[in-house]
Amino acid sequence: MNPGDRVHVVRGGTEYEGVLMPSTTADRLVVKLDGGYNVGIDRAEAELDVLESNVYDVEGARDGEGGSEIQFDEALPTVSLISTGGTIASTVDYRTGAVTAQFDAEDVLRAVPDLAGRANYRGRVVANILSENMTPDVWQELAGAVHEEIEAGADGVVVMHGTDTMQFTASALAFILDTPVPVVFTGSQRSADRPSSDNVMNAVCAVEAAKADCAEVLVCMHATESDDRCALHRSTRVRKNHTSRRNAFETVGAEPLGVVDYDDETVDFRRSYDERGAADLAIHPGLETEVELVKFTPGMSFDRVERLADAAGLVVEGTGLGHVHTDLVPTFREMVESGTPVVMTSQCIEGRVCDRVYDTGRDLLDAGVIEAGDTLPGTAKVKLMWALANVAPESVPETMRTPLAGELTDRSTPWQ
Amino acid sequence: MNPGDRVHVVRGGTEYEGVLMPSTTADRLVVKLDGGYNVGIDRAEAELDVLESNVYDVEGARDGEGGSEIQFDEALPTVSLISTGGTIASTVDYRTGAVTAQFDAEDVLRAVPDLAGRANYRGRVVANILSENMTPDVWQELAGAVHEEIEAGADGVVVMHGTDTMQFTASALAFILDTPVPVVFTGSQRSADRPSSDNVMNAVCAVEAAKADCAEVLVCMHATESDDRCALHRSTRVRKNHTSRRNAFETVGAEPLGVVDYDDETVDFRRSYDERGAADLAIHPGLETEVELVKFTPGMSFDRVERLADAAGLVVEGTGLGHVHTDLVPTFREMVESGTPVVMTSQCIEGRVCDRVYDTGRDLLDAGVIEAGDTLPGTAKVKLMWALANVAPESVPETMRTPLAGELTDRSTPWQ
Repeated sequence: MNPGDRVHVVRGGTEYEGVLMPSTTADRLVVKLDGGYNVGIDRAEAELDVLESNVYDVEGARDGEGGSEIQFDEALPTVSLISTGGTIASTVDYRTGAVTAQFDAEDVLRAVPDLAGRANYRGRVVANILSENMTPDVWQELAGAVHEEIEAGADGVVVMHGTDTMQFTASALAFILDTPVPVVFTGSQRSADRPSSDNVMNAVCAVEAAKADCAEVLVCMHATESDDRCALHRSTRVRKNHTSRRNAFETVGAEPLGVVDYDDETVDFRRSYDERGAADLAIHPGLETEVELVKFTPGMSFDRVERLADAAGLVVEGTGLGHVHTDLVPTFREMVESGTPVVMTSQCIEGRVCDRVYDTGRDLLDAGVIEAGDTLPGTAKVKLMWALANVAPESVPETMRTPLAGELTDRSTPWQ
Repeated sequence: MNPGDRVHVVRGGTEYEGVLMPSTTADRLVVKLDGGYNVGIDRAEAELDVLESNVYDVEGARDGEGGSEIQFDEALPTVSLISTGGTIASTVDYRTGAVTAQFDAEDVLRAVPDLAGRANYRGRVVANILSENMTPDVWQELAGAVHEEIEAGADGVVVMHGTDTMQFTASALAFILDTPVPVVFTGSQRSADRPSSDNVMNAVCAVEAAKADCAEVLVCMHATESDDRCALHRSTRVRKNHTSRRNAFETVGAEPLGVVDYDDETVDFRRSYDERGAADLAIHPGLETEVELVKFTPGMSFDRVERLADAAGLVVEGTGLGHVHTDLVPTFREMVESGTPVVMTSQCIEGRVCDRVYDTGRDLLDAGVIEAGDTLPGTAKVKLMWALANVAPESVPETMRTPLAGELTDRSTPWQ
């Protein structure tokens, strides 16, 4: 039994047929199914038959060009793959029956032979963590790595990231970096060992987007439940809106910025964007980490909200047009007067805050609360972290009311 | 100039033509426009011409039957209108240029002549507050009032409520009350002085729903941007998803329970529901108020989360399938061990938590965190408040995992 053999495997009543991959180890088998997906199987649980030996030049597929070492192709752009962990980069190594994050960029190339021939690749690992464990210092480290890759000549960057907090990390990079090339985040909602894994298509579409013209920080994930196309979302306007669907990510309140067709390999942008080369590469990595987000709900203890007063900044998810209980207004007034900016967003998610309509809103404005328009609450938190470290304190309110990276639009009005 | 006169009014360059209503006072005019909406105009700012005297029997319209006092019609059901405040009940009294809440149920009947002839009405005012100021004690007072109205023979109840926190109050009543008749919340996204106000259609459709067969706590609001139909949402599954649109309310992850056609006056249910009379009237009004909801975001201070440990219960809006940073798990474990239940929901909004897939989730389950399935975070908070006051402490976890009022479904799986 060797990599490249066609095999039949039975595990727990389920049958698999495909080609044994070189990432097979003593403990686990990796089988490339005919549909293109890899499945990982615990060897101790598997019954295996070799159907035919050496049917597939797996080393050749791994190296991209007929079994030789990877050659630099001057006709192709160079795309840097950066791995931070998450399902897309996770092996099929079952630690306790599920998925842990263990992969580097070379492993991704091996696991996704379809990436071959699309670009010259550079690969690096910045982190290897599930994205719920992502922290602002890793955002900064990642931004530095992306900056270095672009400086080193990458024509585009693909960041592999867990889906849980992808929108936060991508937003952070949108504020931290001025980029002349695409920076495309992608991930996977289903691990590589599942027949329905989305990792192959998402990675391929992300590479195609990284070669395209839109020099923004984008999120590239399944656009539908099918394996037909990926949507390209502006990082500051995207939200993971479903816990498990492959098309969990949606641009809030608008169509996605663009679409990558998986079969045609075309990238189609539907709205205006920052073009390749328009910005000079720059990095502004400072972040104030002592920023909190608090969601207002009826019955919450105002005393417990007061305990947040030692934060450097506060983002509030208010109700409706941007409201909280009237009795919270003095707390916010004190925070503002003591130098802690308070930024209002809406838990409605769609639409924009407008605190000029009702009494409570006008009281909030009078207390110095900053309206974040239609900035999403999570994005507003990231932006406030960035603003507090990069602009003068007196400029923070105006910065929060000014679009910097597409996070704030002026196309809607409070009544539309 | 008298109520019933057809008038032409100019205010600030805008012209209005319609019938002067009896709610006109020395300070303000109320004009019923030809489209059916009432507009309120500050008399000091208005130029007014009487076009024709006494064109409309406004007192008759008010009383429903030819100018006489309201007569009890045995052929009609009795609907109780309960006002709690909010835009739908707000007058056009401009306190500081916008809308304050000042109305009682009789005023609503006067403002919405279209309600006449649809039912015998009882009216009462429980509160007169903007809904961001709603508190659990008002939920309890309202539940008591609804209970009394049903005991007194109401065939259905309509609750007029501000839209900001309607979903919280309606969910609270769904847990507090066992009801043999419909309890229908409605509100208005646009105040009565705006030509685009939704208050007339929402009130009419809510009354029709209160006469129908579904004995659940429902939310009745515009289904589309047009004045064609209202959607009926199960209170525990509805969410205000837009700050300002008239069709801001959506059932999460499913079609609404039913639809009220405004023209046809038909009520059409599309899914199964609790039928009129199936439940015996009962009230379980206890609520533990010291329950907090915390939204996990990357970079949040774990020290500040620890400050919530004195709460009686904690609902967490985790990421994805129900995750937080690994370093928060010990904090939650300590809370659980000290008797503060911690309930996990997802900030994705759609889909359900499933903490058996990834390491972080299994660690959370091991720490005693309770999975709330696809219960919405706000609903989970209300339910935990209710559970802590109504079931034994050891039964709270199982209660949170068991559907009580449609808040939790079993139709989706983590991968669908």
